[in-house]
Amino acid sequence: MEQGYVRKPKFYGVGVGPGDSRLLTLRAVEVLQECQVIAIPRSKMERESIAWEIAKPHCPEGAKILELEMPMTSDQGVLQAAWEKAAKAVMGEINQGNSVAFLTLGDPSFYSTYTYLLNILKENLDPEQIETVPGITAMSAAAARVNLPLAIGDEPLLVIPGTGSLAEYRKFPNLVLMKASRNLDEILKVVHKGEVEGILATRVGQERENIRFLNKNEELEKVDYLTLVLLKHKS
Amino acid sequence: MEQGYVRKPKFYGVGVGPGDSRLLTLRAVEVLQECQVIAIPRSKMERESIAWEIAKPHCPEGAKILELEMPMTSDQGVLQAAWEKAAKAVMGEINQGNSVAFLTLGDPSFYSTYTYLLNILKENLDPEQIETVPGITAMSAAAARVNLPLAIGDEPLLVIPGTGSLAEYRKFPNLVLMKASRNLDEILKVVHKGEVEGILATRVGQERENIRFLNKNEELEKVDYLTLVLLKHKS
Repeated sequence: MEQGYVRKPKFYGVGVGPGDSRLLTLRAVEVLQECQVIAIPRSKMERESIAWEIAKPHCPEGAKILELEMPMTSDQGVLQAAWEKAAKAVMGEINQGNSVAFLTLGDPSFYSTYTYLLNILKENLDPEQIETVPGITAMSAAAARVNLPLAIGDEPLLVIPGTGSLAEYRKFPNLVLMKASRNLDEILKVVHKGEVEGILATRVGQERENIRFLNKNEELEKVDYLTLVLLKHKS
Repeated sequence: MEQGYVRKPKFYGVGVGPGDSRLLTLRAVEVLQECQVIAIPRSKMERESIAWEIAKPHCPEGAKILELEMPMTSDQGVLQAAWEKAAKAVMGEINQGNSVAFLTLGDPSFYSTYTYLLNILKENLDPEQIETVPGITAMSAAAARVNLPLAIGDEPLLVIPGTGSLAEYRKFPNLVLMKASRNLDEILKVVHKGEVEGILATRVGQERENIRFLNKNEELEKVDYLTLVLLKHKS
């Protein structure tokens, strides 16, 4: 180390991919190995953090685990307060000289709550103290598992987070519906018409993985929260 | 090894990410290490294959390189013939007992020509002989580099491959334009109006990387073929 040079501790948002521990990138593993603190968002409901289960094999044994409590609510005020508290906990570690790796399922830039934490920390940290490490998305992993493309050539690809209505988007040749349990009945209507090929992917690469094609007579069943659906127009 | 059990050679589509060799997944590296043959699509124009440059540090020294010639054309007949020839070369290796890793830039399921090769090989191989290994997309890597989300919460994300018109998609809060050099003038018109934040990302993680915000007075310049633009509506 150069004389007088002190490396500033960093905050990393680390995408751990959707489930399989082998889908972490080399950079993600490198970062986990270097950090003194591993930060994990956790709700009271969840006994185990999925992101932690995925990252665990790659974390040094001595790393400190910083659990950040995230209430299961859509109340923006409650959430904002929780993120403020989480940011304070992260800053506490950084001010002590510890680098912090915040684990996110999939890719940190892709529908991750990491963004809320990042926006608060941007106010407190120098730009060079922040690094986002991209991850494999569940949609890429699901498409890979069935050996089908998400999109090719001149086709658009639309991702909708499962809260919106499918009706206005039906013309798109390639649709990804995240958290698809919430509008599965609407999805099945389209599948029943036989215009599209539907692939349902639950917990890709995790223990309770379920990936399958939806058939034309598919009946409505309760599906896991971590489910996405790929809809592809038949050509 | 069990008696009488012979492991069948496999065909892998390996996503090597957009540029940085550290953005390969652990699984991708594992596959590259196991394969006897590394297949690379190459046009006559290109002296170096970018996918090969990225994967090279992770490939065993003795691996055989199989160059698959891909003409730079939009003529579907010519392309189809080239892919048929490529598939034949891959099958030649597999029939000799060699596993083949076909390199693709970014993610194999995301606007990759891998799909065409895969569709031909599906006819010749058992399903268990095919594995697609997902990769980091350029859009995820670009968003990570500027510490901005591609999409959050209830927002849709639309990816268009740069050949279509922007006009009908302007209402989307998050737009990714791949191969954006082809409609940069249309993109700049939207940026000039000041309704959106535009991030231009060329060759993310490669030697000639250029990632920057587009400013309101941005002038039209020739940009590299491997350029994507993220357009985000200001809230």
